[in-house]
Amino acid sequence: MHIYNRQQIADQVKLDAAALEAVEAGFAALGRGEVEMPPILSMNIAESNGEVDVKTAHIRGWPRFAIKISPGFFDNPALGLPSLNGLMLLFSAKTGLVDAVLFDEGYLTDIRTALAGAIAAKHLSRSNAQSVAVIGAGLQAELQVAALRLVRDIREVHVYSRDRHKAETYAAHMQTSYGLSVSVHDSAASACKQADIVVTTTPAREPVLHWADLPEGVHVTAMGSDNPHKNELQASILANADVLVVDRLSQSRALGELHHSPDLQREVFELGNLICNQQIARSNDQQITVCDLTGTGVQDTAIANYAARLLEGA
Amino acid sequence: MHIYNRQQIADQVKLDAAALEAVEAGFAALGRGEVEMPPILSMNIAESNGEVDVKTAHIRGWPRFAIKISPGFFDNPALGLPSLNGLMLLFSAKTGLVDAVLFDEGYLTDIRTALAGAIAAKHLSRSNAQSVAVIGAGLQAELQVAALRLVRDIREVHVYSRDRHKAETYAAHMQTSYGLSVSVHDSAASACKQADIVVTTTPAREPVLHWADLPEGVHVTAMGSDNPHKNELQASILANADVLVVDRLSQSRALGELHHSPDLQREVFELGNLICNQQIARSNDQQITVCDLTGTGVQDTAIANYAARLLEGA
Repeated sequence: MHIYNRQQIADQVKLDAAALEAVEAGFAALGRGEVEMPPILSMNIAESNGEVDVKTAHIRGWPRFAIKISPGFFDNPALGLPSLNGLMLLFSAKTGLVDAVLFDEGYLTDIRTALAGAIAAKHLSRSNAQSVAVIGAGLQAELQVAALRLVRDIREVHVYSRDRHKAETYAAHMQTSYGLSVSVHDSAASACKQADIVVTTTPAREPVLHWADLPEGVHVTAMGSDNPHKNELQASILANADVLVVDRLSQSRALGELHHSPDLQREVFELGNLICNQQIARSNDQQITVCDLTGTGVQDTAIANYAARLLEGA
Repeated sequence: MHIYNRQQIADQVKLDAAALEAVEAGFAALGRGEVEMPPILSMNIAESNGEVDVKTAHIRGWPRFAIKISPGFFDNPALGLPSLNGLMLLFSAKTGLVDAVLFDEGYLTDIRTALAGAIAAKHLSRSNAQSVAVIGAGLQAELQVAALRLVRDIREVHVYSRDRHKAETYAAHMQTSYGLSVSVHDSAASACKQADIVVTTTPAREPVLHWADLPEGVHVTAMGSDNPHKNELQASILANADVLVVDRLSQSRALGELHHSPDLQREVFELGNLICNQQIARSNDQQITVCDLTGTGVQDTAIANYAARLLEGA
């Protein structure tokens, strides 16, 4: 059994085409019905403003499955600790023995989450997309844009955050680190005006994006919602979008954007189906496409298998 | 963060009164409504005849919670490996950081499972119980009896197993190792005739114990059922018992004995309620009491906290 720490893992696993391919292979297997993925185990530790989620999935034929444990303790920053944390365990799918423990402290979750956004945009956004509006200015606001660069020739970023100062810090960082042209906006509507792709990366409990904000031909990825109280998209976005995709229907209904539209009557596809069947994708440059990401165990098993292969080769 | 292996853990944690007290404290907290315990996460890996369960619970006020991962891969013996395996992770209930990894390979599960049987018998069996009938001859057939000795003055054991040879090996071992008088029987009915306590420890899918087998005043603990297909007790035992207790109602209904009696109309108590309220227990020596155990996350959190305290002191 091997044990790896965050630094070892981060030295090997990057936001690159190979990692994207690994996560996309996981979603594709899900689309082909080759994945066993039980509901998320979730527990609150109210006295510490904490929660812990456990996700897993097995992809038929893959040598190992991951179990990921993600604690979120939201009073940690006052103690000088990060809120999010966690680890992944890799088990042999033949014997159930532990093969590796990846003490990644949430690093692989950050990566696979960003890559899911890139995979959604690869299959849904216009192929000539260059301009991204980002709502929120946290870590995923950066990683989602970084990952989009793997699939589209991104040139400019328009950011809006409730915290203007955070948005300005973000803009400076994205300019310096990625050579992107970044503008800070005073509203989501303003940030979205010229966007080819919109990514919402907030913990919002009320919609931060409205149907009227969306320009023709845009693709929207909402990656913030991962519990029943969170909600980034106005219901009319789900109702009116030309193509609506989610990472996992059961999860989006339980804890994603679909949770807030229980009576929605329309076709909703899973990202894995989209990868396997391009008929689902946009059919012209005017359509508006939407993808809701809640974060799935199959991404964890895919990125953990990929990480372990790199770490064992290193 | 500390990592402990099975040997280190087994050197510290024994089937003794202190361990029983720790697990009983967990059940008592559950009975007082002080435990957060989500449903079990369960995944099949059909191609390898495998499954994996994840259990957890947080006891309010306790410093750490455990997450236990239990793989069961039933083709392992052909590979020279045990079927059951697993580990427990202990997290700070204040920060969510990993405190310890207990690579116990299922040892602590064996212990806390046996202790639950002893706790049930402590509160339900006649105080003068001396004779135990054991159905099944595997590891729990031994550990359940060993644990019962912590709460009752057990003198004799009557064993029945479908595999007569296994029953004989078991009998010899229990005589040698525990100084018990052990008889091997040809049927469950015969084994139960003189019993004060009956313990079923099988993976049976059809009842192994029938109402007609039970002598007056007996206490029955059924600890084998932990998935919807398993079933050890004839439905009339649940219907006719004077007192019926389960470790966790939701679990017994989903994957324990109650699963096979969906229309049962009667009072059923949880073990934690029984510990907190002795009014629930037997009121005379003629009553027949029954407890169904499915295995709960609160036992895991209780035994893992206890183990970590001992290991840190060692």
